[in-house]
Amino acid sequence: MARIAIDMDNVMADITQHYLKYYENEYGVSIDPATLNGLPEGSAFPEKGAVRLFLNTPGFFRTAPVMPGSQEVIKALAAQHEIFIVSAAMEFPLSLAEKLEWLNEHFPFISWHNIVFCGSKTIIDADYMIDDYDKNLRHFNGEKLLFTAPHNTNLTDYKRVNNWEEVAEVFALKGVANV
Amino acid sequence: MARIAIDMDNVMADITQHYLKYYENEYGVSIDPATLNGLPEGSAFPEKGAVRLFLNTPGFFRTAPVMPGSQEVIKALAAQHEIFIVSAAMEFPLSLAEKLEWLNEHFPFISWHNIVFCGSKTIIDADYMIDDYDKNLRHFNGEKLLFTAPHNTNLTDYKRVNNWEEVAEVFALKGVANV
Repeated sequence: MARIAIDMDNVMADITQHYLKYYENEYGVSIDPATLNGLPEGSAFPEKGAVRLFLNTPGFFRTAPVMPGSQEVIKALAAQHEIFIVSAAMEFPLSLAEKLEWLNEHFPFISWHNIVFCGSKTIIDADYMIDDYDKNLRHFNGEKLLFTAPHNTNLTDYKRVNNWEEVAEVFALKGVANV
Repeated sequence: MARIAIDMDNVMADITQHYLKYYENEYGVSIDPATLNGLPEGSAFPEKGAVRLFLNTPGFFRTAPVMPGSQEVIKALAAQHEIFIVSAAMEFPLSLAEKLEWLNEHFPFISWHNIVFCGSKTIIDADYMIDDYDKNLRHFNGEKLLFTAPHNTNLTDYKRVNNWEEVAEVFALKGVANV
């Protein structure tokens, strides 16, 4: 049994899709997601303040769509391993309660014992970390899995997983339906 | 430089004093704190549901008094070491925002990068842990410091610190005023 630290934003929650929807609502412009590839998350959109505006909008995290396959694969992982949800939520105080409610709605099988909201992830002790950010993986001592997000498409330093089906393959999960 | 994980309740925040005040307000009875010694936190008071009631009362964590000496000693520790505030806040969702506001008010020198709200503390990787609970210290791999609280007075498994002056002594802090 391994201990697996799983990030929320861009890993369990499809924040990119959520940005695209918020962007169209706010600015009336439909953005081709391919144009975000390889650019920093905070400045990938034409309107440079957009991402920070969305991240500070009440309800943003609470209404984020679930990343396809994450519920089924995390449930299967939790049956065989020790799962911790580790989110760098402290930068956005509004997000704390919203993220907890979001987890309770979409991942009700995850106990509060196994949820961590932090700033820096350097204090996390686990065997695996699944995350979309270099800054979180860089100082981690265990196995690192980079979950693909537009901002990290050029990064070549880590073993990459493009979706939850590939996470299931890494952990050789069997019998995971609907991934 | 060491990494030091510091608990909030009963370590940075004087939760026992806060219980006593809430108890007197709610039940009109002044409790001698010595009667709490050696008893589980949740059932030490004559009214058995009192502690859980207080912990779930909006404003309880936000208005907790600061443990004497904690501000000065943690500020001095932070100048020489890497400090992380690690609180098992996830059991009481109301407490998340309140604890963050409380830290920002009373410990403004602590960055959001160095704050962790979790459930189980088994995932914490640090050199020292200062905590009042056996359940948090038990699985920790570093140096364990048991901060004295009424519920742990009979515990003999750990090096004990009775107050922040003794914490300053453990880390050989010099020039800490007003402790």
